[in-house]
Amino acid sequence: MNIIEIIEAKKEGKELSKEQIEFWIDNLMKGTIEDYQTSALLMAICLKGFNDDESAYLTQAMLNSGSKLDLSCFGDKSIDKHSSGGVGDSTSFIVIPILAALGYKCAKASGRGLGHTGGTLDKLESIKGLRIGLSKQEFFDQVKNIGLAIVGQSADICPADKKLYALRDVTATVSNIGLISSSIMSKKLASGAKNIVLDVKCGRGAFMKDESSAIELARRMVAIGKKMDKNITAVVTNMDYPLDNYIGNSLEILGALKVLKGEINNLYEVSITLSSVLLESMGVKDAKEKCIEVIKNGQALEKFRQMIAYQGGDVSYIDDDSNLINAKTVLEVVSNEDGYVVDIDPIKIAHSVQLMGGGRLKTTDSIDLYCGLKINKNINNKINKGESLATLYINNGDIDQIYACVLDAFKIAKAPIQEPKMILKIINNI
Amino acid sequence: MNIIEIIEAKKEGKELSKEQIEFWIDNLMKGTIEDYQTSALLMAICLKGFNDDESAYLTQAMLNSGSKLDLSCFGDKSIDKHSSGGVGDSTSFIVIPILAALGYKCAKASGRGLGHTGGTLDKLESIKGLRIGLSKQEFFDQVKNIGLAIVGQSADICPADKKLYALRDVTATVSNIGLISSSIMSKKLASGAKNIVLDVKCGRGAFMKDESSAIELARRMVAIGKKMDKNITAVVTNMDYPLDNYIGNSLEILGALKVLKGEINNLYEVSITLSSVLLESMGVKDAKEKCIEVIKNGQALEKFRQMIAYQGGDVSYIDDDSNLINAKTVLEVVSNEDGYVVDIDPIKIAHSVQLMGGGRLKTTDSIDLYCGLKINKNINNKINKGESLATLYINNGDIDQIYACVLDAFKIAKAPIQEPKMILKIINNI
Repeated sequence: MNIIEIIEAKKEGKELSKEQIEFWIDNLMKGTIEDYQTSALLMAICLKGFNDDESAYLTQAMLNSGSKLDLSCFGDKSIDKHSSGGVGDSTSFIVIPILAALGYKCAKASGRGLGHTGGTLDKLESIKGLRIGLSKQEFFDQVKNIGLAIVGQSADICPADKKLYALRDVTATVSNIGLISSSIMSKKLASGAKNIVLDVKCGRGAFMKDESSAIELARRMVAIGKKMDKNITAVVTNMDYPLDNYIGNSLEILGALKVLKGEINNLYEVSITLSSVLLESMGVKDAKEKCIEVIKNGQALEKFRQMIAYQGGDVSYIDDDSNLINAKTVLEVVSNEDGYVVDIDPIKIAHSVQLMGGGRLKTTDSIDLYCGLKINKNINNKINKGESLATLYINNGDIDQIYACVLDAFKIAKAPIQEPKMILKIINNI
Repeated sequence: MNIIEIIEAKKEGKELSKEQIEFWIDNLMKGTIEDYQTSALLMAICLKGFNDDESAYLTQAMLNSGSKLDLSCFGDKSIDKHSSGGVGDSTSFIVIPILAALGYKCAKASGRGLGHTGGTLDKLESIKGLRIGLSKQEFFDQVKNIGLAIVGQSADICPADKKLYALRDVTATVSNIGLISSSIMSKKLASGAKNIVLDVKCGRGAFMKDESSAIELARRMVAIGKKMDKNITAVVTNMDYPLDNYIGNSLEILGALKVLKGEINNLYEVSITLSSVLLESMGVKDAKEKCIEVIKNGQALEKFRQMIAYQGGDVSYIDDDSNLINAKTVLEVVSNEDGYVVDIDPIKIAHSVQLMGGGRLKTTDSIDLYCGLKINKNINNKINKGESLATLYINNGDIDQIYACVLDAFKIAKAPIQEPKMILKIINNI
C-alpha cells in the first residue's frame, strides 16, 4: 500500500477501504506521508466525495491517534451532548442538569469560544472560583457522586484531527460533510459516552447555513455514531437568530439560569427537545414530561448548583443575578422607529460582543467574560420609537461602534413575520 | 489576492486568471506558498479542469521562472522539434538534418532517457568524442555556420516546471492534459524557436495510450503555442509498436543513419511527415518533395556529418556501422512457430533493453550505450519456425531473462493483421 495509489483511487472516485484510511492517518502522524500528499487527498475527497463508511473509518482512525475516556464504569447511563456552535447557545447548562437530575451520568469535555461562537468553558469560568481543570480521579468521582461535570478537553485527544484540520484550513478543503462530521465525531467519541445527542445548528449564525446541508451533516454524524455502536440522535435547530436573549459569557450563564428557574423561551424549547430526544432514543417513556418536571421542581437547578459547588465555584452566583453582570457601562439601544422586530442578525450580535472584547479571533486571545448584551425585544415583539431593543454591558471597546453594530442587527417592519420554527428536524434512524 | 481563494476558486470550477496563475507560480518559487497548498490546487485542477487560456498562462509563468534562449538572430528561420517520447524513436537525427539541409536553423536542446523512453543525448554520446555541453557562443556559432546543433538542456530553464513536476509525481496529479501540455510547452518555448513541430506519440509505448487523449494533448499544445505567437504544428503518430527496427542508444543512431542513407521504413515515413508539415506551416510549397530530395541527394546525411564533426565526434561512426555495434554477446531470438508477426509490444522491447542495462530507472543511473536489439521481422512479416525475430546485442544482464522478454514481445498468428497507420492526425489549425 502507498499513499500515491490511495490519492489516485480517490481521484478516480473510488471508495477508500478501512485499511487505506488507517494507513493514511497512521503515516500522517508518523510523518512518513507528506503534508502535500495529504492535502492532495483532501482535495480529491472534497471533489469526489466521502461516504458514510469512509467517514466512520476516518473517525475511528483519528480517535485512535490519541487518548480516549473510558466511561464503561457508568454502564449504559453515560450521556453526552454536542452543539455545532451558534450565538446565545447555552443549552449545555440546561440539558446536562436535566439529565443528571433524572439519574444519568454526564462527564462532559468542552472547548473554548472562537470566532462568532461562544465557548462553554469561558462561560463557566465567569463563575468565581470554578475550576475546569479537574484531575481524572476528581472528574470521575464527581460524576459518580452527583451525575455531572463539565471540564476542559484533554489536549491529547485526536491529534490527527488537529493536524488534518490545520491543513484543511489553509488548503480550502474545510467544506466537505464527510471531513466535517469525522472531525466532530472523533472528538465526541473520544469522550466515551454511550448515549449522545447532537445539536446541529442551521442558519446565518451557524456553520451550516442551509437546512439541507445541516440535515446532511446531522444524518452523516448519526450514521458514523451508529456504526461505532453509539445510541445517537441529532436535532437540527434554528440558528437564524440568537437562541437566547442573553449574549456574552457570564450573561449566557444568566440566561441558562433563567430557564433552570422556570422561564419559558426558545432556549427552553431547544433544551427540552435535546434532553427528551436523547431519553427517547434510550427507550425512556414520557421523556418530555420528565424533563419538564425536573425543571419545574427545581431538581435540574439543584444539579447545576451541585456541579458549581463541586468544581469550587461560588454558588452565590446562582442566586444573585448581579454577580454575573459586571460592566462599567450599561447602555440601552433604542429603536428609531415604531413597528415589529422582524430580524435579529446573529453574526452582527456576535460581532458586537467581539467589539466589546468578549470573543476570540484567535485561540490565544484573552477575553472579557462579563461584557455582552441582553435582547429586550425579540422576533415579532412590538416596539415603539425610543423603546429599548437591547441592553449593552460594556467594559472595553468603542461604545459608538458597538451601539451601531447592535442597532444594525435589528430590523423593524410594519407587520410581524411568520413565527420561526426552532426545531427543524430530528434524526435518529439511518 | 491569496492562495486559499485561488484554490477555492478552482475547487468551485472557476477559470483562473492570468494574475492568479502568475501569483501562484511566483510565490511557489519564492516559497511563500506552501507545497501542500500547491498540491491541493493541482488536485482541484485535475478534477475541475484547466482550459487553453489557463494552460497558456501557466506555460508563460513557468517559462518566466528561468532562463530562455533568444534565437531572434535567426529571424523566422529558427525551427524546433519535440517528441512526447516512445520506443525506437530517433526522428530528431533525421528531421533536423533534413531541415538544416533546406536552410533552416535548428538549435535543439535535448534531454536524457528515463523509464521506457530513450534520450537524444544518450544516443548521441555513443558517438566517440561527441560533446553535448557546448558553450553558448559555440552553440550559436555552430547553428549560424551549419544550421544545426543538438546540446543538453540548460539546467536553469523552467525551474517552476521542475518543482511542479516533482510535486505532481508524488501526489497523483500528473495526468491532466492542461498540466502536461504546460510542462512540455514551457520547456519547448524556453528553447526560443519560432517554428515548432510536435510529435505526439500515441499507443502502448507512449504516455498517451489512446488516440482521443493524444489528439487532445496535441490540440492543447498547439493552442498554447499559437497563443504565444509560435508557428506550431502537431502530428499524432503511432506508438503501439517500436517505431524503428533498431532499439538501444548507439543502435538508434544506426537506425537513423540507415534512413539518412536511403532506407524507407516507418521511421522514414514519420520523419518525412514531421519535416514536411513544419515546412508547410511556414508556407513552403512542395515541402514533402523537398524533404525527400535532401535524403536522396545525401545533403541531409551531410548535415548530420557536419554536426558530428563540429561537436567533436568521430565521423567514422557515420560510415562504418560496426562502430555503433559493440556487444560481448550477439544472439538471435528465434521463432517457435510459423506464421505472421502480428504484434510487437514496445514496452516489453524497452524492458529488455533495461534488462541489458541500456535504460534508466532513475535519473542518476549510468547506462550501457551499446546494448540493444534489432528487430528482424516486423508487423505482418512472414516468419518460419527457427528463423530470427530479433538480434540481441548484450553486454550485461541475465541472457535467458532478456531472451524470454524479447520473445514474449512478439506475437505470431496464422494471418496478417490490417497494416497499422503511422500518421494518426495532423493538427495545425485551432
